[in-house]
Amino acid sequence: MRKKLNIGLVGYGFMGRAHTNAYRQAPKFFDVPYDLVLKAACARNQDAIQAFADNWGYEGIETDWRALVARDDIDAIDICAPNNMHHDIAIAAAKAGKMVLCEKPLAMNVAEGCEMVDAVEKAGVPNMIWYNYRRVPAVTLAKQLIDEGRLGRIFHYRAVFLQDWTISADLPQGGASLWRLDAAAAGSGVTGDLLAHCIDTALWLNGSIGSVSAMTEIFIKERQHNLTGKVEPVKIEDACAFLARFKNGSLATFESTRYARGHKALYTFEINGEHASIQWDLHDLHRLNYFDHRDDSLVRGWRSIHITDGDMPYMDHWWVPGLQIGFEHSFIHGVADFFQGVASGKPAHPTFRDALETQRVCEAVLKSAQTNSWQPVGA
Amino acid sequence: MRKKLNIGLVGYGFMGRAHTNAYRQAPKFFDVPYDLVLKAACARNQDAIQAFADNWGYEGIETDWRALVARDDIDAIDICAPNNMHHDIAIAAAKAGKMVLCEKPLAMNVAEGCEMVDAVEKAGVPNMIWYNYRRVPAVTLAKQLIDEGRLGRIFHYRAVFLQDWTISADLPQGGASLWRLDAAAAGSGVTGDLLAHCIDTALWLNGSIGSVSAMTEIFIKERQHNLTGKVEPVKIEDACAFLARFKNGSLATFESTRYARGHKALYTFEINGEHASIQWDLHDLHRLNYFDHRDDSLVRGWRSIHITDGDMPYMDHWWVPGLQIGFEHSFIHGVADFFQGVASGKPAHPTFRDALETQRVCEAVLKSAQTNSWQPVGA
Amino acid sequence: MRKKLNIGLVGYGFMGRAHTNAYRQAPKFFDVPYDLVLKAACARNQDAIQAFADNWGYEGIETDWRALVARDDIDAIDICAPNNMHHDIAIAAAKAGKMVLCEKPLAMNVAEGCEMVDAVEKAGVPNMIWYNYRRVPAVTLAKQLIDEGRLGRIFHYRAVFLQDWTISADLPQGGASLWRLDAAAAGSGVTGDLLAHCIDTALWLNGSIGSVSAMTEIFIKERQHNLTGKVEPVKIEDACAFLARFKNGSLATFESTRYARGHKALYTFEINGEHASIQWDLHDLHRLNYFDHRDDSLVRGWRSIHITDGDMPYMDHWWVPGLQIGFEHSFIHGVADFFQGVASGKPAHPTFRDALETQRVCEAVLKSAQTNSWQPVGA
Amino acid sequence: MRKKLNIGLVGYGFMGRAHTNAYRQAPKFFDVPYDLVLKAACARNQDAIQAFADNWGYEGIETDWRALVARDDIDAIDICAPNNMHHDIAIAAAKAGKMVLCEKPLAMNVAEGCEMVDAVEKAGVPNMIWYNYRRVPAVTLAKQLIDEGRLGRIFHYRAVFLQDWTISADLPQGGASLWRLDAAAAGSGVTGDLLAHCIDTALWLNGSIGSVSAMTEIFIKERQHNLTGKVEPVKIEDACAFLARFKNGSLATFESTRYARGHKALYTFEINGEHASIQWDLHDLHRLNYFDHRDDSLVRGWRSIHITDGDMPYMDHWWVPGLQIGFEHSFIHGVADFFQGVASGKPAHPTFRDALETQRVCEAVLKSAQTNSWQPVGA
Repeated sequence: MRKKLNIGLVGYGFMGRAHTNAYRQAPKFFDVPYDLVLKAACARNQDAIQAFADNWGYEGIETDWRALVARDDIDAIDICAPNNMHHDIAIAAAKAGKMVLCEKPLAMNVAEGCEMVDAVEKAGVPNMIWYNYRRVPAVTLAKQLIDEGRLGRIFHYRAVFLQDWTISADLPQGGASLWRLDAAAAGSGVTGDLLAHCIDTALWLNGSIGSVSAMTEIFIKERQHNLTGKVEPVKIEDACAFLARFKNGSLATFESTRYARGHKALYTFEINGEHASIQWDLHDLHRLNYFDHRDDSLVRGWRSIHITDGDMPYMDHWWVPGLQIGFEHSFIHGVADFFQGVASGKPAHPTFRDALETQRVCEAVLKSAQTNSWQPVGA
Repeated sequence: MRKKLNIGLVGYGFMGRAHTNAYRQAPKFFDVPYDLVLKAACARNQDAIQAFADNWGYEGIETDWRALVARDDIDAIDICAPNNMHHDIAIAAAKAGKMVLCEKPLAMNVAEGCEMVDAVEKAGVPNMIWYNYRRVPAVTLAKQLIDEGRLGRIFHYRAVFLQDWTISADLPQGGASLWRLDAAAAGSGVTGDLLAHCIDTALWLNGSIGSVSAMTEIFIKERQHNLTGKVEPVKIEDACAFLARFKNGSLATFESTRYARGHKALYTFEINGEHASIQWDLHDLHRLNYFDHRDDSLVRGWRSIHITDGDMPYMDHWWVPGLQIGFEHSFIHGVADFFQGVASGKPAHPTFRDALETQRVCEAVLKSAQTNSWQPVGA
Repeated sequence: MRKKLNIGLVGYGFMGRAHTNAYRQAPKFFDVPYDLVLKAACARNQDAIQAFADNWGYEGIETDWRALVARDDIDAIDICAPNNMHHDIAIAAAKAGKMVLCEKPLAMNVAEGCEMVDAVEKAGVPNMIWYNYRRVPAVTLAKQLIDEGRLGRIFHYRAVFLQDWTISADLPQGGASLWRLDAAAAGSGVTGDLLAHCIDTALWLNGSIGSVSAMTEIFIKERQHNLTGKVEPVKIEDACAFLARFKNGSLATFESTRYARGHKALYTFEINGEHASIQWDLHDLHRLNYFDHRDDSLVRGWRSIHITDGDMPYMDHWWVPGLQIGFEHSFIHGVADFFQGVASGKPAHPTFRDALETQRVCEAVLKSAQTNSWQPVGA
Repeated sequence: MRKKLNIGLVGYGFMGRAHTNAYRQAPKFFDVPYDLVLKAACARNQDAIQAFADNWGYEGIETDWRALVARDDIDAIDICAPNNMHHDIAIAAAKAGKMVLCEKPLAMNVAEGCEMVDAVEKAGVPNMIWYNYRRVPAVTLAKQLIDEGRLGRIFHYRAVFLQDWTISADLPQGGASLWRLDAAAAGSGVTGDLLAHCIDTALWLNGSIGSVSAMTEIFIKERQHNLTGKVEPVKIEDACAFLARFKNGSLATFESTRYARGHKALYTFEINGEHASIQWDLHDLHRLNYFDHRDDSLVRGWRSIHITDGDMPYMDHWWVPGLQIGFEHSFIHGVADFFQGVASGKPAHPTFRDALETQRVCEAVLKSAQTNSWQPVGA
């Protein structure tokens, strides 16, 4: 018999669904060394959270996260609430001795993030931030190829995360599914929401960033605010682009926007090394493009690797060659890795500490944009 | 309270997993009007089926499908056993008044298929064949675009299903996961296994086929047989290609092989109409290519439609725009549609009768190849 | 000083321009061992041929091809006239001891073709049919890769040539630029016009075809005829598809149509071998796709080879890596190869004899379609 | 009779060939209102320039550009010499009353560029800088679509020009074909060589740039110098990336490098507007990608426009739909446009004055990189 681990989830939006699905699915496809129990789901809106719990099979609900954290029968707290709630919930959960899984970004800022890292480390509880794209098999393969040294010295890194959902001036800000447009809830705009993904992957694949030069823009200056009912200034950045120098000497460009017509979630990265290069694209997440200059020149070209064979990361747990998986599987892999890490004592990445580094880069980026100057990434 | 429906599954291979996953997932993402219970899983190998049942949460097991069919507490029989077992199980299940869901192809041949259709229709039980690719959202969208008349008169249809997994002469035939290479279990080679998918989609999208001219080939004539331990002649065709004339006057080419290096499950189709054309590819199943000649000529080109927005078929039940789903979702959609059809009385397609038409085409194809002559598709 | 060779061209249409451009360009980029002189251009329409000659720098004109062939100062006759004129001009030119270059297809039928081959061989004159796609660098590279044995045993060949320019029922047939729709001038429809290209390439890359099963269709039965002014039955086939068995044991499908919306000149082929596969596409003619199963499985994928580097066939004569050439360059390569062959005594391919084999396949294809039966390719 | 215009060319390298080919080809495919005469080619190396002149049909040679400029029988001077020679030759040619066509970039710096602009404007001579990519039909189409207002308000512009030819540390610098790596001859590295192309296109398509923040890098610090025979510091930048704010409010990223494995001449740009977006890629220069959000959402997607139809810019002068042109055609279009402009008095773009704006951006970029600060683009 596997030991039961009781999960308490805060939030029931897009990420609440994705995480819950992952808890249900992971044990069916992977060797998860615990019996994961959907113990309680928590949100202030009682009807909504009850419906969510009923659908997904949570045993019960809570309407106050403090009550959830206080329960003795909860082993792990999973935070899917808006960014401005991460800090308090995570610290309380850590103090209560619970494992903490938290949606990205880690926090509203570095100061909060430091306190959160301190809390989980002091408590000695397993912890992870859901930077899920690390566990798209193609991205995991990219990491593997780099670690094997196939690319050689890295010269260039470039990443974008392009969306188009806020181009309409009629879109309001704030509340419910639009909290990402409300600075009070989100902390920042595309930087914390989208670039944080790009930065997390980049740090994982290419090491630390030394300094950045950024620019941001708010294209539509005022929007109706759902919480106040009034037209208010938009305070989150619609777009952000920055130059970066990695500590390994490579140069980088990063860009994110919600004003790029034609792109819904076009997260792409490319890495150019001395010997080989890699490209990936979230819109075709089951492919990795790879170019190896050491190939016989007559047949040298970008290879489109269809990541479905059993020797690809995670893929021996899924279907048969040729058959692709989708977005939600990255979370399932996260659940499998996290709990295998809990059992083995070898923590799954990115931990809160790992994610703090991304937070530092975000903060340097925003400061650079405010000051129109190059900024070092704080230590 | 939703009414409980108890599922009894025969088989635990690739399709056993895909179907079971679909029963578990469908109610979480779709409005399934019943409470689907994984009641019993059945296979001759007791240890194997017990492990399967434990993993997936089946309440119990059976080791004889006749026992499963005989149980009063089973409402629906799902057949994931090799092709040579479809006929007997399906007929017994129908006679026992149970709904029948059966993996494709319908049967070993048309004669068997006719008996199966008779059985389910006489019994009046809901029935469906799992031609799952109809419910890949991009394919469903293709159907919708055609039904809206966007293509106009159809001139051409072409489809291939290319694999490469049997190129090695060392691969044995027969038994366990290799029953598809054993004529006694599979009935035919690529025709029933792969072309049947292409034909099913084609009949759905483009109507009936009138006649065919086919060729088949066995590239490697003998293989070790796992059941006998001896080198035996290979009796299933490795490759099959055929010309077809649809009754709507359009011309078609179809081809399938397991000897196409570079392709794992490359099911593609293209339809050329008077005004517009459509392309789809299983290796990038979340995209549909569409060309409309009525576009302003300066910006006329093939459109790559990323099928992730909420107005795409089935996609309002999944994630957010830009985030793709994968292979297994087609089965989840099948479960949702089937049981909504049971509740509404409007049967989900393809029924056994629908699938019999595909069987007729397959039989004409094989006869054509044997006789080196054009063959009409029997009525 | 290079020896002068005087060119006499018959025809001034699309191919007249492409050939003339090639005569002018080849010596600037390749080592052509003769001084090619645009001596005379010939067509019945005096004003038109004079304008053509003036533009391109022909020294003079003729309005009767017999007069051109009779001239002592012409060394090579290049036939760009409609198919029904190839036979007479080529034989007359050969008898007059002139080199003969002739647009494809060789002839209206095999009988004519045999006489043409006899004529040039009896006369011992250098001869070539302009199957220009052999000399697209990507296609030449495909030949090289196959000849090096990289693909191993070939299992499959498939080719299509798709156009859409005759879908409108208002398009007339016959005369001037529409002679390809007039059976009297063209001999056949897509078979001789488009499939002939596919067959020529296939024979070159994959050897002889043994037998075929074909179907053809005329979608629009009657069209206004430009020569008679009357609505007349269309006698050329709009579409043709056929199955083929190559003598090396591989299976093939071929298809061509002028009713494929979205495709202007989509000539594609794919070859699947035991170890590797190749794809090519005229719409992106400067790329070759290559898949090699012997690659390390982690980085195995279809390679998109951008054919611009100096080690690619013909490309050391053009620009710099990354910069593509276009359609007309295939003719320039043909001129370079033909005259280098004249100088070296090693004839450039395809000779009339080579092209006769394509003619035999075309004839078997048309006969198969007429008789609804498999047809051997005549010897 | 068309009036003769005598061309005098300085330089015989890659660009010397491309321009000369354009002078020869343009009148065959376009209505060029003059009789262009290849009068003289000029370079210091007498044997080399004589061989070049013989191959291409120049009537004579010069070994001193001053002598060429001094000749009364030269109407237009075309400068294909290294960047550090543009200034003196262009000013001398202008003073001599000759038309001046000059390879890009305009000059070594803005100061030189201003003098050159003054010279041609004071002399009132037709002048053009060969930013040839404006005349790739797909790029010209992009301009047309933008000018028609199809994109609406522009939010984003991004461009890269990626090469990989200097990754080897064994590659020397300076002299002959490697002058681009020698600061004394080139002025700058990728900025003037490659980014200048990106900037020229961007200014044409999207208007003026207000300010930039750039970084540059020299990855390999020392190389053997061909002119001195010694290992010397590399003074040109290997890579350069910059952020930019356009005066229309849009944000941009630009990047160029010669250290991007897998890319030979990957010049790409993307423009995101309120309603529509555009992408282009030099590696497939005959395609333009276009996304229009106003499309019916069911069939909305990126369109791959194959730029070969007769209604596309310049394409009615080439072949037939489906058949692509290549790199050198952009120069042919330049010749056609330039001399049509001479005849009509409506100057072809970009003039020296137009190109001065690109020079100003380059200078601001280099200064920004040197000072690690945002820099305005000087007026």
